[in-house]
Amino acid sequence: MTTLDRLSLNQWTTRTWSVAEAADGCVRAGIPAIGLWREPVAEYGLAASAKAVHDAGLRVSSLCRAFGLTSGTGDLDDSRRAVDEAAALGAPCLIVVAGGLPAGSKDLAGARARLADAIGELEPHARAAGVQLALEALHPMYCADRAVLSTLGQALDLAEQWPAESVGVVVDTFHVWWDPQVTEQIARAAGRIASFQVCDYLDPLPADLLLGRAMMGDGVIDFRPLVRAVEAAGYTGDIEVEIFNADVWAADPDEVLATMTARYLSEVL
Amino acid sequence: MTTLDRLSLNQWTTRTWSVAEAADGCVRAGIPAIGLWREPVAEYGLAASAKAVHDAGLRVSSLCRAFGLTSGTGDLDDSRRAVDEAAALGAPCLIVVAGGLPAGSKDLAGARARLADAIGELEPHARAAGVQLALEALHPMYCADRAVLSTLGQALDLAEQWPAESVGVVVDTFHVWWDPQVTEQIARAAGRIASFQVCDYLDPLPADLLLGRAMMGDGVIDFRPLVRAVEAAGYTGDIEVEIFNADVWAADPDEVLATMTARYLSEVL
Repeated sequence: MTTLDRLSLNQWTTRTWSVAEAADGCVRAGIPAIGLWREPVAEYGLAASAKAVHDAGLRVSSLCRAFGLTSGTGDLDDSRRAVDEAAALGAPCLIVVAGGLPAGSKDLAGARARLADAIGELEPHARAAGVQLALEALHPMYCADRAVLSTLGQALDLAEQWPAESVGVVVDTFHVWWDPQVTEQIARAAGRIASFQVCDYLDPLPADLLLGRAMMGDGVIDFRPLVRAVEAAGYTGDIEVEIFNADVWAADPDEVLATMTARYLSEVL
Repeated sequence: MTTLDRLSLNQWTTRTWSVAEAADGCVRAGIPAIGLWREPVAEYGLAASAKAVHDAGLRVSSLCRAFGLTSGTGDLDDSRRAVDEAAALGAPCLIVVAGGLPAGSKDLAGARARLADAIGELEPHARAAGVQLALEALHPMYCADRAVLSTLGQALDLAEQWPAESVGVVVDTFHVWWDPQVTEQIARAAGRIASFQVCDYLDPLPADLLLGRAMMGDGVIDFRPLVRAVEAAGYTGDIEVEIFNADVWAADPDEVLATMTARYLSEVL
């Protein structure tokens, strides 16, 4: 592969842009797909967002996200609405971020059990809507505050309780690059990879740990072994670039897309 | 257990104290064991340190550490000297912290292979000295800069290449609490647990990620399931409290020991 055929812009990478601006930016940069977030979609309007990406000729690679199924900061009704929004946008999958420990709780096992229960509650609605739930393991440094789902293997242990059509997993290079089991767990994920997200991992991390994601090539990740493993698992879908980074957000979004396409070709493919 | 019989002070917890001051502090607090560090031991003198802890009637639970076997910041000769120092101090084990990626490198697999090679080089010297190498998996957030050994399972995969008498593992609650496999990996570690270290995990973490360790009870870890798992694996050795925390270091060390013994009884046992 030497083209942008599978490249997708996760819109949080250019978060100052509206949905329509991001769609136009993708067209200018030759990027054929976009990963949407609920907040900017709500701001632009659900129907208007669907029309904007459709008129631009873009695929929607994912919708972010259902959140907080363990910690009391999210709820199932909101997650069902997120499924409906994914369906309305033509997104094949909804990213699910587990949530961390409830405030004051130390009951990690209980939080993980609640997550499994919540997926079980949500799955029939997702199946009926034709939207795959994409369970995202987050780096273990977020276990307390954002996601008790900490490894790809753990995500697969959970996802495998349901059909792959309704519950898949996310492979995100930032979250899994360190994992000694990553190669075997990606192989195990064959047929169940709902989303493949790439970005680099900064060393040292910034004080705000959420902003340690970086443009490919600016961190410590060797992408190609991970990309090859995902391809060997049969995944042929979009490769979404999702970057939370203060410098990237401060830059001209068109320049971000220019760098992103260049780095995608030089570092990822 | 309701006594301090197995409690050990890792001396970095009271790092403003010399070896002799820490030994005296342990005696005053009724703490029967101490984990030493090479830097304060060198400052006080190897023979004088051995005499100070012996005269105080303390067990030495461990010596920290061999470091940087992957990243070029440590070397094998220095690690062999660390083994000799552990033997001279009567420490049953030497903590081994792998090291991260060499500057500019993205070759994680290569770094992990170099670590295995280095342990293989070091093991005959450790065996001859009667010192067990204690391989410490560090939390994955340190993978790039401090330890490519990231999980207890990975540490066991490595340690099991040698006899348990010469290569064991560390179970450190801060590093393993998030791991979905922690219970089964602790069980697997039966007969190979060289050191058990406890401290809590702060949420949120401070900007300096090294200082996220906290007094038991001040973070998110539920200690008892981990303690029970370690005991079920047959470990009856010392339980070492190792805290890197700016507030703890700024406090009166005698007060730190008073809090530490109280929290050990209320949170750990």
